[in-house]
Amino acid sequence: MLKGYRLDSKRSISLGDYNPEDTADFKDKEEIAEAFEKLKEQLQDEQEKLFASKANSVLILFQGMDCSGKDGVIRKVLGGLNPQGFRAESFKQPTADEAAHDFLWRTHKVTPPKGYITAFNRSYYEEVLITKVHGLIDQEEVDKRLKHIQHFEKLLLDNGTLVIKLFLHISPEFQLDKIKERMENPEKLWKFDPSDLQERRYWKDYMKAYQHAFKSTGTKRNPWYIVPANHRWFRDYLVLRIIVSSLRELNLSYPKIDLSHFNSFDEKGSPELITPNNS
Amino acid sequence: MLKGYRLDSKRSISLGDYNPEDTADFKDKEEIAEAFEKLKEQLQDEQEKLFASKANSVLILFQGMDCSGKDGVIRKVLGGLNPQGFRAESFKQPTADEAAHDFLWRTHKVTPPKGYITAFNRSYYEEVLITKVHGLIDQEEVDKRLKHIQHFEKLLLDNGTLVIKLFLHISPEFQLDKIKERMENPEKLWKFDPSDLQERRYWKDYMKAYQHAFKSTGTKRNPWYIVPANHRWFRDYLVLRIIVSSLRELNLSYPKIDLSHFNSFDEKGSPELITPNNS
Repeated sequence: MLKGYRLDSKRSISLGDYNPEDTADFKDKEEIAEAFEKLKEQLQDEQEKLFASKANSVLILFQGMDCSGKDGVIRKVLGGLNPQGFRAESFKQPTADEAAHDFLWRTHKVTPPKGYITAFNRSYYEEVLITKVHGLIDQEEVDKRLKHIQHFEKLLLDNGTLVIKLFLHISPEFQLDKIKERMENPEKLWKFDPSDLQERRYWKDYMKAYQHAFKSTGTKRNPWYIVPANHRWFRDYLVLRIIVSSLRELNLSYPKIDLSHFNSFDEKGSPELITPNNS
Repeated sequence: MLKGYRLDSKRSISLGDYNPEDTADFKDKEEIAEAFEKLKEQLQDEQEKLFASKANSVLILFQGMDCSGKDGVIRKVLGGLNPQGFRAESFKQPTADEAAHDFLWRTHKVTPPKGYITAFNRSYYEEVLITKVHGLIDQEEVDKRLKHIQHFEKLLLDNGTLVIKLFLHISPEFQLDKIKERMENPEKLWKFDPSDLQERRYWKDYMKAYQHAFKSTGTKRNPWYIVPANHRWFRDYLVLRIIVSSLRELNLSYPKIDLSHFNSFDEKGSPELITPNNS
């Protein structure tokens, strides 16, 4: 099932061929509810083995237009992870210090150490998307940066970091509905950003920039996934399936520890005689 | 109910007077199950208002002996928070760079920015606990550090940071049971640390060091809470109640945003005409 959403061979695609309404023949949320809960448990198990074995790390990268649900999917799919081994990072306007470095510097700093999972809400890919769409860099610079991204992701891979790249695919109509919802609900109004409306003008340019980025960076070991995201329940389910399936491919297991060489027991071989000094 | 667990007047206490088996007259987990779920929802609501209003931040600090359940409580009580506004930080042996700075440097760096909640799994309090118990610093140095901690917590308070300090109180017998559990379960063995057994010898010294720290730093606005933790369900419930109640005292609300001055609409006052460039 996941194969149809995966881009792993540097081929050209058109996002127009991917239907944001797609739900892979599932009818509704109820139909996948049980499977969803089971997958969440599996994800927690995988996380514990990842943390215990400290041989790999996982970087889950979310890209998508405003209102595509990056925040929501991180909360609903990854919210059940043990927070002591998981972090969500988001990237806003670079600070002066960040802007004074190369474009991978600020994201590299917060990649996951071994044993950990990190989710990126937006990522270094913005540096070939928003910058290109607004004409801040030309195509030559885009291609240079995409090469750097390829090398960077290989560096992570060589160090045992699994990079899962997810594009949340919505339609412009869906986006407008969400923007209106934010404007009309006093508890959601704080999420409304007038610039989201302005960015809508550049929809087609964004799609082109994404397509170009997918083509350069969707490889067998570091693929992209296009996640239909007009239906939130399907979006969450598919993202969770992709993550669990990718983690399982790591074949994680608990470390084997041999206690027979453990020499801190007393002469009886029992830890019980190590008694506290108040008894 | 929370009052009996709060230390807010710099008074001397003896931890021997606090029963780790206490469950405040609740019989079992079932009795508080519904209240627990409701409190978790309230916590999520408070977190969203905190994040939206960006006027305050919350630092929740967990201290306690090995196996007192710091990891577990962070997972079970705070695991449901939106990971995009929440972080868990734990502090191990200081790195060379950390050790070359003052004792508050590494923790100060990771205090929560406005809108965020951070949990500390252990904290700067270790610098007056383990160090004192093992004779690395004398009483004079302890008292100096406790003064610095008082000033530091006032600094945080003045910047709108709510500091919630929780001591998870277990008995040495409970700890030993947990250590054995870890040694006997292949899926928990990786959590076993031989030094935990050694540290048990110093139980009484640790209790003394904690009592002294509570006396110096348990103030009206930055109180300590002693959480009976032999029963995990009660521990989780009480911690959650303390956190929700403390957050509610901040009187958080969604920011009021006036859209009437919003001038990015078209002449019809509607955002709908801002159409994407592919339609």
